[in-house]
Amino acid sequence: MFPKNTWYVACTPAEIDDKPLGRQICGEQIVFYRGGDGQVAALEDFCPHRGAQLSLGQVCEGKLVCGYHGLVMGCDGKTVSMPGQRVQGFPKIRSYPVVERHGFVWVWPGDATVADAALIPHLEWADSPDWAYGGGLYHIHCDYRLMIDNLMDLTHETYVHTTSIGQKEIDQTPVTTRTEGDTVTTSRFMENVMAPPFWRANLRGNNLADDVPVDRWQVCRFTPPSHVMIEVGVAHAGQGGYNADTKHKVHAVVVDFLTPETETSMWYFWGMARNFNPKDRALTAQIREGQAKVFAEDTAVLEAQQANLLRYPERKLLMLNIDAGGVQSRRILDRLMAQEQAQPQAA
Amino acid sequence: MFPKNTWYVACTPAEIDDKPLGRQICGEQIVFYRGGDGQVAALEDFCPHRGAQLSLGQVCEGKLVCGYHGLVMGCDGKTVSMPGQRVQGFPKIRSYPVVERHGFVWVWPGDATVADAALIPHLEWADSPDWAYGGGLYHIHCDYRLMIDNLMDLTHETYVHTTSIGQKEIDQTPVTTRTEGDTVTTSRFMENVMAPPFWRANLRGNNLADDVPVDRWQVCRFTPPSHVMIEVGVAHAGQGGYNADTKHKVHAVVVDFLTPETETSMWYFWGMARNFNPKDRALTAQIREGQAKVFAEDTAVLEAQQANLLRYPERKLLMLNIDAGGVQSRRILDRLMAQEQAQPQAA
Amino acid sequence: MFPKNTWYVACTPAEIDDKPLGRQICGEQIVFYRGGDGQVAALEDFCPHRGAQLSLGQVCEGKLVCGYHGLVMGCDGKTVSMPGQRVQGFPKIRSYPVVERHGFVWVWPGDATVADAALIPHLEWADSPDWAYGGGLYHIHCDYRLMIDNLMDLTHETYVHTTSIGQKEIDQTPVTTRTEGDTVTTSRFMENVMAPPFWRANLRGNNLADDVPVDRWQVCRFTPPSHVMIEVGVAHAGQGGYNADTKHKVHAVVVDFLTPETETSMWYFWGMARNFNPKDRALTAQIREGQAKVFAEDTAVLEAQQANLLRYPERKLLMLNIDAGGVQSRRILDRLMAQEQAQPQAA
Repeated sequence: MFPKNTWYVACTPAEIDDKPLGRQICGEQIVFYRGGDGQVAALEDFCPHRGAQLSLGQVCEGKLVCGYHGLVMGCDGKTVSMPGQRVQGFPKIRSYPVVERHGFVWVWPGDATVADAALIPHLEWADSPDWAYGGGLYHIHCDYRLMIDNLMDLTHETYVHTTSIGQKEIDQTPVTTRTEGDTVTTSRFMENVMAPPFWRANLRGNNLADDVPVDRWQVCRFTPPSHVMIEVGVAHAGQGGYNADTKHKVHAVVVDFLTPETETSMWYFWGMARNFNPKDRALTAQIREGQAKVFAEDTAVLEAQQANLLRYPERKLLMLNIDAGGVQSRRILDRLMAQEQAQPQAA
Repeated sequence: MFPKNTWYVACTPAEIDDKPLGRQICGEQIVFYRGGDGQVAALEDFCPHRGAQLSLGQVCEGKLVCGYHGLVMGCDGKTVSMPGQRVQGFPKIRSYPVVERHGFVWVWPGDATVADAALIPHLEWADSPDWAYGGGLYHIHCDYRLMIDNLMDLTHETYVHTTSIGQKEIDQTPVTTRTEGDTVTTSRFMENVMAPPFWRANLRGNNLADDVPVDRWQVCRFTPPSHVMIEVGVAHAGQGGYNADTKHKVHAVVVDFLTPETETSMWYFWGMARNFNPKDRALTAQIREGQAKVFAEDTAVLEAQQANLLRYPERKLLMLNIDAGGVQSRRILDRLMAQEQAQPQAA
Repeated sequence: MFPKNTWYVACTPAEIDDKPLGRQICGEQIVFYRGGDGQVAALEDFCPHRGAQLSLGQVCEGKLVCGYHGLVMGCDGKTVSMPGQRVQGFPKIRSYPVVERHGFVWVWPGDATVADAALIPHLEWADSPDWAYGGGLYHIHCDYRLMIDNLMDLTHETYVHTTSIGQKEIDQTPVTTRTEGDTVTTSRFMENVMAPPFWRANLRGNNLADDVPVDRWQVCRFTPPSHVMIEVGVAHAGQGGYNADTKHKVHAVVVDFLTPETETSMWYFWGMARNFNPKDRALTAQIREGQAKVFAEDTAVLEAQQANLLRYPERKLLMLNIDAGGVQSRRILDRLMAQEQAQPQAA
């Protein structure tokens, strides 16, 4: 239950720097590697000779060499050569559109004829010296849509992340949710509250007092297929909140790329981009460590939720006001999947 | 293949003292916790909001609070409140009849309208200062009826428990088995034998000589759905055996509550109640340690037997004279299950 | 997908010296043990009483005693006795033809009425003081035929065994494959090459210079159901190669008995027989250690290949010239399995 004619984050560049990477994405077994000129290539992870995983082989001079019998595969899925063999008649394996951009490797697991690199989202913070980014990757045994629900309804922070970003006022402050085109936005603005530990640390990280009341905001934006960018921050109370001058606030974007592996598992590329004190690497590491704990808490909750839903397949879940972000996001996904089903498949 | 309109041991009180407990019983996912006034409650382990396991939440002022978004659940399965929500229309979740009695928590996983606390067995040893009890819990991957067979035919002690309670005379002494109402009793009386190590230790624990011949008895009683109480003991030979004066014997009840989890797994609440030297806690601990080893031996045998039976689903097993206890017990279970099938389901 | 009316290596004698061994072979659960006079017996691993695995029991005076209730089983599958029971009417369990020969225990998992010990292959190196043998056993999660393919196409050595027996010239030297009766032979002769590390060590082990060019050979012989014997060796170049006088060469037989466990798992009995320096036990140990590493590399490749093939069940694999050994071997297996299907089953 995921659209396939779209771009997903497949991996980070570092994951393929030294060796090929085998990863299942949207049910497709794919090998990613750096081909000629260091360009990323993505192929079916299946040697046409005897079915070995090409990802267990090596890259030699920009070509993928099978680790079983030395078949040399080209980036287009055509066998280039094999010791002692004529390879012209070898069956081609599937290649996937793949682009390295904004610090991630993006793959299009569906119909290659309609892939368009211009559709990769622009990440303004990724290529600017005014921003710093740190993040990680978790493999989670849940439907990626449970994570969309999770990220579009932050009331869970009060219960799941009690020691870091949760606070009672999240619960008590209603959200506004609206859909514009394919973007769903859920916003919460809290005024005159005390910052929880994660944000107190960030205030200190920007040389701001952490023991005074703040205004806090959370603006969650879903765009298909499964990207959720959350503007988060706190400003000293009374300085304009979200719109306060940068000297009174700490502002960041929680970055969430959710890539389905199977119907009930996913790759979670998480991180945070910030435009305060961007050169401070220790601060980047500290924030990443904090986020790693927070998202590990989500992982535990979501895996248990997924297991429970599989035990009760017939149950309908409630869709409350707080769930509007997830509900509206899933509505967009349903429409996109229906469109894909209706289209004749080119490949 | 288990009756559901009956009481099973669900857990010990200590298991729910600090936090909710999620446990599957007879195929039902149930959360147990202490509600208002410390009364035990048992509910479906499924939050009506988003399907999280309620057992991963917390108990606050006698109410179960979901650990995902803070829904507050009442002991009757009706949502009490949720931050920012009107909850009157929330679907009710199932609640299960549950009673704390005789040092155990008892649950009725079937039709609540026919549950009757008076049907919980009376355990005379549980509430008397003349008796001491120690026990434990094992999770075993086998059909609970294989454990009934095991406990109703103690000839296996000679082979499975060679270093503790096994002795050749068990094999050599025939048993008497009879059914009265829903109770099956299998009895064995051995005369003028040497006590095996476990019983020599118990003789010493009651300040009796352990190096003289004894009379030994085993009286196994099955009552539905799956309780097996075994009167066991040894008396110095010639003093009346089972009926000997207490100053010549050590007598105890092996306590076995078998609670099905699924068709091929179970919870085994095991223990021993004794009325000699009941204040001696070191003796209680020593006996429990010995039993833990004995029942771990059974666990290994039964899990291997279950795995083997699954490989040979078409095979019929033999029903010998020694198996009469298990055979007659299963006959009672078959009758109870047939009665349940015949009844219109109230819930 | 394996013939059953044939002999497979079941275990080594050492595996049943102290206690019974339970092992699944061709889908049959079998217990192997030493019965009267130390003769090997093989029975269905299922106690006719309550279905326990007989392999968890003990051998007493040449009879298998069930570890659950002491049933005494004879080598013919008939119950001999059981405490307190008349056993004449007990159902017989299946016994399997089994022979200890040439340092292995051989079992015939199919129709016992057509078993013939004369069909066990003669292993000339097994019973001669001029030869030494060392080997081991690996449990591998792959169809045994993937291992046949592997052993009948040694071009993989260049890629999989780069640090021990691989060298570029294997790839570059074509093979000759021919089928005679039920034997498939694939031969490769390399001339005037430098020996790779494993063979340099063997040259030294036979007191021969290891830094001079050699002729190297590999003669792989498949015989049904799944035995692959590979004559391997190197001789100082120009001394006659394969036919060189023993003082100029090191020659050995790589021994591979592949025993299917299930459709996708197998027991791999691997080893090497050599007729140089046969009394040198340190050399035997050194060769075995080297082989253990080599076959662990194969194990990793084959298990990954098997997993990948299960993901792509509809894919056809290529059958190149280098694959001729495997292709012709599988053709013989297909014929034998078709013959078995056509025969009326006696048992």
